[in-house]
Amino acid sequence: MEKVVAYQKLIDITTSVFLAMGCSETHAASAAQVLVSADLRGIDSHGVARLSGYVRLWEAKRVNASPDVKIIHETPSTAVVDGDQGLGLVVAPIAMKVAIEKARQVGTGWVSVCNSNHFGIAAYHAMLALEEDMIGMVMTNASALVAPTNSNERMLGTNPICVAIPGGEEPAFVADMATTTAANGKLEILQRKGLDAPLGWIQDKQGNTVKDAHALKNGGALLPLGSDKEHGSHKGYALGAIVDIFSAVLSGANYGPWVPPFPAYVPMPENQPGKGIGHFLGAMRIDAFRKKEDFKKDMDQWIRRFRQAKPIDENYPVLIPGDPEREMELARRNEGIPLLAIVWEDIVAVAEKLKIKV
Amino acid sequence: MEKVVAYQKLIDITTSVFLAMGCSETHAASAAQVLVSADLRGIDSHGVARLSGYVRLWEAKRVNASPDVKIIHETPSTAVVDGDQGLGLVVAPIAMKVAIEKARQVGTGWVSVCNSNHFGIAAYHAMLALEEDMIGMVMTNASALVAPTNSNERMLGTNPICVAIPGGEEPAFVADMATTTAANGKLEILQRKGLDAPLGWIQDKQGNTVKDAHALKNGGALLPLGSDKEHGSHKGYALGAIVDIFSAVLSGANYGPWVPPFPAYVPMPENQPGKGIGHFLGAMRIDAFRKKEDFKKDMDQWIRRFRQAKPIDENYPVLIPGDPEREMELARRNEGIPLLAIVWEDIVAVAEKLKIKV
Repeated sequence: MEKVVAYQKLIDITTSVFLAMGCSETHAASAAQVLVSADLRGIDSHGVARLSGYVRLWEAKRVNASPDVKIIHETPSTAVVDGDQGLGLVVAPIAMKVAIEKARQVGTGWVSVCNSNHFGIAAYHAMLALEEDMIGMVMTNASALVAPTNSNERMLGTNPICVAIPGGEEPAFVADMATTTAANGKLEILQRKGLDAPLGWIQDKQGNTVKDAHALKNGGALLPLGSDKEHGSHKGYALGAIVDIFSAVLSGANYGPWVPPFPAYVPMPENQPGKGIGHFLGAMRIDAFRKKEDFKKDMDQWIRRFRQAKPIDENYPVLIPGDPEREMELARRNEGIPLLAIVWEDIVAVAEKLKIKV
Repeated sequence: MEKVVAYQKLIDITTSVFLAMGCSETHAASAAQVLVSADLRGIDSHGVARLSGYVRLWEAKRVNASPDVKIIHETPSTAVVDGDQGLGLVVAPIAMKVAIEKARQVGTGWVSVCNSNHFGIAAYHAMLALEEDMIGMVMTNASALVAPTNSNERMLGTNPICVAIPGGEEPAFVADMATTTAANGKLEILQRKGLDAPLGWIQDKQGNTVKDAHALKNGGALLPLGSDKEHGSHKGYALGAIVDIFSAVLSGANYGPWVPPFPAYVPMPENQPGKGIGHFLGAMRIDAFRKKEDFKKDMDQWIRRFRQAKPIDENYPVLIPGDPEREMELARRNEGIPLLAIVWEDIVAVAEKLKIKV
């Protein structure tokens, strides 16, 4: 059961919900655009399916709807931004603009953010750099669901890394990936469908690799990219750790098992060492390295050569990171966004509660 | 059959070899220190086992022993360095010093390098930042051995990423990883021992995952971190691609299948788009983000908490990236470096050819 909703309608509803929470018009519009960009790009787990979750965080007073987002430390190429407990959907684009402005001045800009909340998809923020002929690099930590190699304790979030690189005639290269073998959203799809997960995605409470897609809910953990030690899970663990440290130890946010959970009903971890969750956002001006035209010519050649790499099966050519999401976005902008009935009902319920006409 | 050689003796031989190639005393000493640091840290595949390979590159006139390494483009936080076809072992530390100096001035420094050669282990260069209370981040591309997801063509090198982060009382966090499931050095060990590789490390010429450790020599390829699509190999492919683009498309070096091969007998790829191989080196001053003391206190807590993460098996505790290499270095500095007989004989032969007394 699906309901197809037009992009603009989803933006309107989402904006109204954020306005009803007390966000300013600017913040509400920005947050809606970030959130619905996930649905546009096919990352359904991070889009309007989470709208009611954000509202519950606000109801639980874990989100400040009118934050005073500000720089608390800076150099010509760096800043730490305090998100004042705002929506990450609001805080991250502001922080990315700081990074972009610094890159404009001195070549690159790097911003570590504390006291924030979940920021939607990393790609939205990283791609803000593309319009400026800059490379964008964005990471965030998140509440602990992932066990480091050798452990059966949840210590890291799915801690995504996104890198967006402008092309010339070719579309941009946009890699946006959780540092786990599989994103939690993929697991949720299997759970809803009652299917098993491939071995190597999750482990149970004792640390055994298992197929049961519900193992995570029963004290298990997601596995770092690489799945097991023999296949390099220590690398996925290290990548997730780097994201955690850049996002939170550099900014003074919470890290590791102390990161605030997204579900408002999950109690906050005790003895938190920092403030909120952390992000890390960077921008590098292309022409801080080379003439833009030279870079773009080579980047186009890079992209074309990789597209032409010999495929194992001609029906499955080599893709450039970002290809599937870009195609999805084109289709959904025109044809609307298909939502699971349960997601649509959830949005309607939230809207009704906040007296918004859907 | 192993021969144990003292650290200083290996440094002396290696320095003499580089001097005999025509390197200046400064360059020879620096290159020797980089190369032997791999042996010290237990990355035997990247150390003196490659000394004769570097000499052959010089004999084939692919390495310039007296390069004029210089900045060809810069902004306050960035530079492109042309390595003048020098040894990467010489070029990379110079480029890293440029990054560090820029970080001293404006908070961070980012250097993309063209016209270089293999630079040994990434960790050596990244760890130069630690002494300055900076985070080091270093990548390099390398000749193509890795097939992107969906392909059976070798398009990327093992393209490592290293991130080194200072601790306070705790030793530094140093993650140095190929963006493949297994480093090529690990495969070489299996080849020498006549053992099979785990499924997921390599594919054969047709693109089938195979156990045959020699498949790589017969037209096969290494697999990106993640091993297959179901386990996230598109993420390993994306990481390797990011390293390639930052190192070479940003600098004007060769990328993808055009990167010069390390073995001097392998012909250069035709129609190369750039110069030599590329690196990317960055430094971020800790106190460009937070007070050093605050960062170090949190970093120590991060490290201690992860060490205490509940282990699946108490005999295998959770490690912090860099732990095994640091312990190896301590042991080998004191007890000497064990070399395979074949490696030692190769070094002796090179030394004799260059009239160096061993």
